[in-house]
Amino acid sequence: MSADLARLSLNQITIKSWSVQEAAEGCAQAGIPWIGLWRDKVAETGLKESASIIRETGLKVSSLCRGGMFPAATRADRAARIDDNRRAVGEAAVLGTDVLVLVCGAAPDRDIDAARRMVEEGIEWVLPYAEQAGIKLGIEPLHPVFAADRSVISTFAQANDIVERLNSPQVGVVMDVYHVWWDPVLYTEIERARGHILGFHVNDWLRGGGDPLSSRGMMGDGVIQLRKMREAVEAAGYAGPIEVEIFNEEVWAMPGEDVLELIGERYLEHVL
Amino acid sequence: MSADLARLSLNQITIKSWSVQEAAEGCAQAGIPWIGLWRDKVAETGLKESASIIRETGLKVSSLCRGGMFPAATRADRAARIDDNRRAVGEAAVLGTDVLVLVCGAAPDRDIDAARRMVEEGIEWVLPYAEQAGIKLGIEPLHPVFAADRSVISTFAQANDIVERLNSPQVGVVMDVYHVWWDPVLYTEIERARGHILGFHVNDWLRGGGDPLSSRGMMGDGVIQLRKMREAVEAAGYAGPIEVEIFNEEVWAMPGEDVLELIGERYLEHVL
Repeated sequence: MSADLARLSLNQITIKSWSVQEAAEGCAQAGIPWIGLWRDKVAETGLKESASIIRETGLKVSSLCRGGMFPAATRADRAARIDDNRRAVGEAAVLGTDVLVLVCGAAPDRDIDAARRMVEEGIEWVLPYAEQAGIKLGIEPLHPVFAADRSVISTFAQANDIVERLNSPQVGVVMDVYHVWWDPVLYTEIERARGHILGFHVNDWLRGGGDPLSSRGMMGDGVIQLRKMREAVEAAGYAGPIEVEIFNEEVWAMPGEDVLELIGERYLEHVL
Repeated sequence: MSADLARLSLNQITIKSWSVQEAAEGCAQAGIPWIGLWRDKVAETGLKESASIIRETGLKVSSLCRGGMFPAATRADRAARIDDNRRAVGEAAVLGTDVLVLVCGAAPDRDIDAARRMVEEGIEWVLPYAEQAGIKLGIEPLHPVFAADRSVISTFAQANDIVERLNSPQVGVVMDVYHVWWDPVLYTEIERARGHILGFHVNDWLRGGGDPLSSRGMMGDGVIQLRKMREAVEAAGYAGPIEVEIFNEEVWAMPGEDVLELIGERYLEHVL
């Protein structure tokens, strides 16, 4: 492994076709020491089997995607979501990561403020389980384009507000450049997150539109000031893994080995 | 005209196939007293001819779309944008509206902060012409999904900041619900905009993704709290026209008369 890649992590969604086994072996061969796992992929392979694969390849798990999705229309549905988050906490512990990424969820109706309250309550309910399991809950603000479908937590400031109110070392923020690059107060909020930044995800924002869910770019192909943001999170005390997380039809169509090679190159050129 | 429709305005893009003449006659027949014009449509018809059509149909012009697009890579290009904005100010005056909507522009490179400074300087340069012509410059914050392609002014707060710094009665904010509905500090910023709200645009945000440029919804079909927002801008002192501005392939495929009828119904049901 090149020392320069010491912080690099493959978020598994970037090579969507690969199983846990394929992704872990690919990373090990490419000298990428970290991996970010997804629960659906882990479930396909089996939880214990996945943990065993990770141990055998010697990888470290940067995070598990994802908990969250707290708002729901009924009390029963909200309780079911909490149960699912508790299971996710347990899975994270078995897989040997200390970070569960939270995609907080959209409103079940038009009341976005009520949904935001449900998110904060949901995190509060899951927190005792996270504390007991030694898992940190990483609130990932999602780009406002996803506010109706995936998360009513749309800004870094909202995530910081929740972290400050809950005031637990087990709750922090995961910053994905795709979701926050446009934010006029981004650097103020990064500094405010000092001590509770739990993850840093890179990719790029491509010009020209398209479906925001599947046209995320490879680092260097878009407009995001990646190096500047990496330096800012470091200046705010974050020294952990840097996950490459790309939802992109063209990247998904490439052979996995080629994606890993490209990721390594672009990471060295545009992020480090 | 129904008294209930007294503030309703058709933004011309909503019925994209119609010329100025067709749109003006359609509004007059449907009892819609206001129209928001687009410069490309006005240019097709001719500026004086368009002004004459508007006078004959007895409509009022709520705004002209659009000036802006200030950031550019070279000094010459920036100067050309300023010239274009001066022309837009002149056209607004001839058409008899007092509001020119500004879509402020994207960065020519990756430096979003520099582009934001270019926007503010650009408005400052156009301002003397606007003051002389009695035209107000309405900064329209655009949804962050358009930050790479159309505007680096992504939040209501940024627009308010610029208005406060420039401190002229000729500069204000145009609020389009599509662009700001997700904003966790929206209502604070609406109240802060008291006295300088120059326009209010309605439509809806549809769940389920798609290209954000052409899948804007008809009022009532999405998740935006339209009535709550209308009441908030009124509480902040805005009593002007309410423009319906919808970029949507399905709406564009409908006969214009049907669109006007639907707009009237949905406006009464979801906005008033």
